[in-house]
Amino acid sequence: MRVRATVAYDGTGYSGFQRQLNATTVQEVLETVLAQLTQEEVTLVAAGRTDAGVHALGQVIAFDTRWQHGTADLQRAMNAVLPPDIAVRDVAETGEDFHPRYDARKRHYRYSVRNAPLRWPIGRQYSLHVPYALDERLMQEAAQLLVGEHDFATFGQPTQGDVTLRHVFKASWSREPFQWESSRQSGDRRGLLVFDIEANGFLYRMVRSIVGTLLDVGQHRMSLTAFEEAFASCERSCAGKTAEPHGLCLMRVYF
Amino acid sequence: MRVRATVAYDGTGYSGFQRQLNATTVQEVLETVLAQLTQEEVTLVAAGRTDAGVHALGQVIAFDTRWQHGTADLQRAMNAVLPPDIAVRDVAETGEDFHPRYDARKRHYRYSVRNAPLRWPIGRQYSLHVPYALDERLMQEAAQLLVGEHDFATFGQPTQGDVTLRHVFKASWSREPFQWESSRQSGDRRGLLVFDIEANGFLYRMVRSIVGTLLDVGQHRMSLTAFEEAFASCERSCAGKTAEPHGLCLMRVYF
Repeated sequence: MRVRATVAYDGTGYSGFQRQLNATTVQEVLETVLAQLTQEEVTLVAAGRTDAGVHALGQVIAFDTRWQHGTADLQRAMNAVLPPDIAVRDVAETGEDFHPRYDARKRHYRYSVRNAPLRWPIGRQYSLHVPYALDERLMQEAAQLLVGEHDFATFGQPTQGDVTLRHVFKASWSREPFQWESSRQSGDRRGLLVFDIEANGFLYRMVRSIVGTLLDVGQHRMSLTAFEEAFASCERSCAGKTAEPHGLCLMRVYF
Repeated sequence: MRVRATVAYDGTGYSGFQRQLNATTVQEVLETVLAQLTQEEVTLVAAGRTDAGVHALGQVIAFDTRWQHGTADLQRAMNAVLPPDIAVRDVAETGEDFHPRYDARKRHYRYSVRNAPLRWPIGRQYSLHVPYALDERLMQEAAQLLVGEHDFATFGQPTQGDVTLRHVFKASWSREPFQWESSRQSGDRRGLLVFDIEANGFLYRMVRSIVGTLLDVGQHRMSLTAFEEAFASCERSCAGKTAEPHGLCLMRVYF
């Protein structure tokens, strides 16, 4: 049968999702555990190839197996054997032609920024610390320019083929409370600034490149007009710095 | 001058706060950094000796130094040199007789439990995962018995002397949203179950022993009456299992 599963992982300790030589990846750990449990060689495909250090709450994978004991048992067995930084959220039988990458119609990534003067040790693995002031209104205006079907060549390279056209359905900043900061005792400005972006597909490092450039806008190092021009130029060199991976999380894949 | 500072740390990588031979502790890292910055040997005292793996948002330390450049510069210098898992939240000059342990009149600890069927990789370092159902009402009733001045010998050993009498001002469970869990997509029961306890002082491993015993009550392995009897017995052997350290955090010290 073909199995579809949703996987969450803390990317801190991994060289990304996709299997590679001489580096520990999430794919390798999952395939090793599946081979151990099913006693067969398993090759899986995934919806998104997250970079080194990038997290996932809703990565979707698929693989073929002759496992006979039902999907609930497979999930339990996987979670019992997988390391603490990887967990399987659901497992279900799916159609033989299901492919998480080709069948995905929308992916949701979230980039989290902790915008406060001081570093915060608890939870530091999951958000970028930005100590300088950010103009949220301006970052929101710039983000709105990304919505729609556009050529995103400024912000990344295609992972396959040469088409850099992508459809962004949503791109917006919002504030969330930051769990590990005690609001009563901190003099810091509160909360997390999160950037949610949904698109039919993403170029290599596209979200991190967009966030890095939006942070330039937010600290008035790049004007809104300059951002618009950089976006229209389709020149990779016009983008800002690529934001660090640990703030990024693949939230959900829609089929 | 005598300096007082508030320190936050992620205890995951440390063998506790207090300096010891052949193990990395938070105190050792702080003292090494202070010696490097001030060019003098620094010995610090702290309000609470957190165990290996226990976190802190509001640990308070004090030390004497001949540092000449002001407390704001000292804080900046410390945060620039300290590793990412330790941060100094504030630094101030204080009276020569200030002692964070002896002068503390109240300490607030929080123990976080993620009560949900599935493991969650993101943020797993900061809460205990409890997959079985918990009777929150019963745990709350048992917690209420702890409030007041009591002999806590059941739940810990004195760190010095032999007095096991402590005054607990607050002991209660509440629900908090769990940041890293997407509420829209998860079939899990939501949120963190947090236990806040405030007392004039704590015995060695007291909070973790109380939490482990309350979790026995929560899963009906110990009745409320049995809890009351265990508490009154003052017998260490009547307590439940000591809960793992990573759910515990020293939130704040009151003077």
